Amino acid sequence: MGKRNLYLTNIPVEEALERFQKALSPYLKADNEVVEVIHSLDRITAEAVFARFNSPLYDCAAMDGVAVISARTYGASETSPMSLKRGEDFLAVDTGDPVEPPFDAVIMAEDIHEAEEKNGETIVIRSSAAPWQHVRPVGEDIVQGEMILPGGHKIRPLDIGVLLSGGITRISARKRPEVAIIPTGSELVEPGDEMKEGGIIESNSRMFEGLVKQCGGIPFRFAPIPDEYELLKERLRDAAERFDAVLVSAGTSAGREDYTVHVLRELGEVAVHGVAMKPGKPVVLAVVNGKPVVGIPGYPVSAYLAYENFVAPILKFLSGLLETRAPVVQATLTRRLVSSLKYREYVRVKVGRIGERLVAAPLARGAGAAMSLVRADGFCVIEQDSEGVEAGADVNVVLCRDLDDLEQTVVSIGSHDLILDVIADLMPNLFHGVHLSSTHVGSMGTFGAQKRRDTYRSHSFAGRRDGRI
Amino acid sequence: MGKRNLYLTNIPVEEALERFQKALSPYLKADNEVVEVIHSLDRITAEAVFARFNSPLYDCAAMDGVAVISARTYGASETSPMSLKRGEDFLAVDTGDPVEPPFDAVIMAEDIHEAEEKNGETIVIRSSAAPWQHVRPVGEDIVQGEMILPGGHKIRPLDIGVLLSGGITRISARKRPEVAIIPTGSELVEPGDEMKEGGIIESNSRMFEGLVKQCGGIPFRFAPIPDEYELLKERLRDAAERFDAVLVSAGTSAGREDYTVHVLRELGEVAVHGVAMKPGKPVVLAVVNGKPVVGIPGYPVSAYLAYENFVAPILKFLSGLLETRAPVVQATLTRRLVSSLKYREYVRVKVGRIGERLVAAPLARGAGAAMSLVRADGFCVIEQDSEGVEAGADVNVVLCRDLDDLEQTVVSIGSHDLILDVIADLMPNLFHGVHLSSTHVGSMGTFGAQKRRDTYRSHSFAGRRDGRI
Repeated sequence: MGKRNLYLTNIPVEEALERFQKALSPYLKADNEVVEVIHSLDRITAEAVFARFNSPLYDCAAMDGVAVISARTYGASETSPMSLKRGEDFLAVDTGDPVEPPFDAVIMAEDIHEAEEKNGETIVIRSSAAPWQHVRPVGEDIVQGEMILPGGHKIRPLDIGVLLSGGITRISARKRPEVAIIPTGSELVEPGDEMKEGGIIESNSRMFEGLVKQCGGIPFRFAPIPDEYELLKERLRDAAERFDAVLVSAGTSAGREDYTVHVLRELGEVAVHGVAMKPGKPVVLAVVNGKPVVGIPGYPVSAYLAYENFVAPILKFLSGLLETRAPVVQATLTRRLVSSLKYREYVRVKVGRIGERLVAAPLARGAGAAMSLVRADGFCVIEQDSEGVEAGADVNVVLCRDLDDLEQTVVSIGSHDLILDVIADLMPNLFHGVHLSSTHVGSMGTFGAQKRRDTYRSHSFAGRRDGRI
Repeated sequence: MGKRNLYLTNIPVEEALERFQKALSPYLKADNEVVEVIHSLDRITAEAVFARFNSPLYDCAAMDGVAVISARTYGASETSPMSLKRGEDFLAVDTGDPVEPPFDAVIMAEDIHEAEEKNGETIVIRSSAAPWQHVRPVGEDIVQGEMILPGGHKIRPLDIGVLLSGGITRISARKRPEVAIIPTGSELVEPGDEMKEGGIIESNSRMFEGLVKQCGGIPFRFAPIPDEYELLKERLRDAAERFDAVLVSAGTSAGREDYTVHVLRELGEVAVHGVAMKPGKPVVLAVVNGKPVVGIPGYPVSAYLAYENFVAPILKFLSGLLETRAPVVQATLTRRLVSSLKYREYVRVKVGRIGERLVAAPLARGAGAAMSLVRADGFCVIEQDSEGVEAGADVNVVLCRDLDDLEQTVVSIGSHDLILDVIADLMPNLFHGVHLSSTHVGSMGTFGAQKRRDTYRSHSFAGRRDGRI
């Protein structure tokens, strides 16, 4: 107790995930549950769903009009109109009404040119009706026994409509994993509570709540617990029993009160402690009671990257969500990035179009620079075997914003000016959806950017592709 | 009562939306409300949010280690190690702990090479500390008064973390519009209830529930009401008072019991009845009590398209969601499409890659063909001024599925075989995320497709771009 864990490992990201998945593989399995179709939006089908009913359920009118016996209409034409008698020759029908023998065709209301006003008992038609015209045959849309949705399908609003039409009111869906989120740290203060000396506002767990939802999970956030070994142990053991996965926020590094890894070693198996990534190195990947337990570093950017790399894949596997690949674009780097051979580095960048090129301007790189996450349009990933990238080089940027959105963004590189914040706020209203992307590099940085033509002039607004601001 | 509305107008889609928006413009305004930040995921900021606190709140340790007085460490080196005394020369600190005067720098735990074991009262350092090294200055991440988020921003999980760190626990967000959904029709049967003679399962309202959620609204679905004029009038008047928008499902066309347009004319202003689109023509766009009331045709594909064209833009305006443009790709049409000059037609298509090309295979075109919506990868829009498109022509397809996903899809064009449904269900598991896209054109259609090289052979599986199945 109180001793430091100086020696974290430095395992490459992919290898760390593989070790974690291998340690989990005997236990990890997706569960299914029965879900009401009317509450199934965004759920994932556990298996293929087959129609119980035909749709339509019976032969029915495809149009408003009259149902007729087609054979009796033969010979009707513009030059020899034909009279039909209600009940005998025709029945009024609206769209969807059954069409039953001997009736076998529908004439549209628009084509009944001069209904004589004998209390509507007689109508006149001026063309014959082909058998089954304007009749939807039983099962035209959905045939009983037909597959409506395959397994592993994320249910959309329109799927709900078709499932119900096909007679399905309940389906088997992947169970949403229940995820415990446990913030740790004696220094933590709940948001809105009075600040104390040396206090830090607990915020990461609330970010995790949102991230877990986006991975199809159900978050259960615990109240923060102080750095007490036995208390942490009790909570973790309990959580690993009651939940499908556990996230422990902070206490994962080498501090004197960083108990997470010790507790996890006592409770289960630690597959990895320390990953070759920056930010995010002091991550703990463990298995307790067959459940994934991830110790996530406390710095917000580290927390975000550790989650995305090690928690998201596990939760998506459990919830049945397909892994989506973030879009990648090529962009010109606005300034030199030096990186260590010790780790893969995730540099947050702003991206914008200048003329025909996309440019990527690096943001603050610190693990604590949460605002750089908010501002980022994407990540420039510098692999472990690279010492960095020169200014002007082309880099791949993994986008975390829509490219379409980025095309609507005006790029400004210069020294920080609060007026830019105000403009950024007003722009979408002033210029219908156009955003401002400003990175603050200081005045010297501005000159460099100008030289490389990253912007047209200091604080000038680079145009969108279509030349309009 | 009981008479048909034979004469629907045939107003082009854009013009219809404009008329609707113009009729609404004196009334329609977005409301705001106060929202707890911890419950603000996916909400839209009503205005810019500025930090109340600095983050960090004070100068603090960026690393685990010891806080030192930098001036006292000058001269320490490998060759002349220096001893420091606890309390006087150093204090143990963990990441995030305050660093207060006279201490002004942090030495990492890893750099304290040989801490002599005098009960930890003395440590040895082998290099000097620069002032402020490994110290995060107050406000390094977020400066009090800085803009954290602009207005009109959709809140992500990471935004929640930063807002809380910046001392924000409540924000002003756009109010989610509350939308009444009223299914009408005496023939309607609730899903799961016993089917009656001539009954139709009510499913469109459940599709609308999902669509309203996706537009940022809160759906309130009413029980189906029978085709009774006075009852419909009462419900609509009531709904237009209590809700921000009202959707009336079905009863919008020319049937004998299609009262929607008559009731709306009595209660308010009908801006449009009948739009030049197929499916979806008999839509009613009205304003009652200053609220948008949309009468949506009963056929499921008509309902979907009427919603997307006329309801989604209004709800997104109210909820503050940005209009997102669906991705458009160019694809080769696999067979001829004939269309009328009377309307814009939305043809559902399957899209897949064959070699270097994308191909678009039209699906069933009926307004009642809901399965064609489920199967569709996108819409081929045939404009009103076009009589159709020849097979082999390049068309624009508005995608409703991810392009990435489509690249993972195997295309099969041939006569329908149930085994293809089974394969479609199994494929994602067998071939890691690969989907099967089969369109059923009958045997003759297959020969045509072969001739045009849309597939390699009847029911053969066209490869993915990378050549693997």
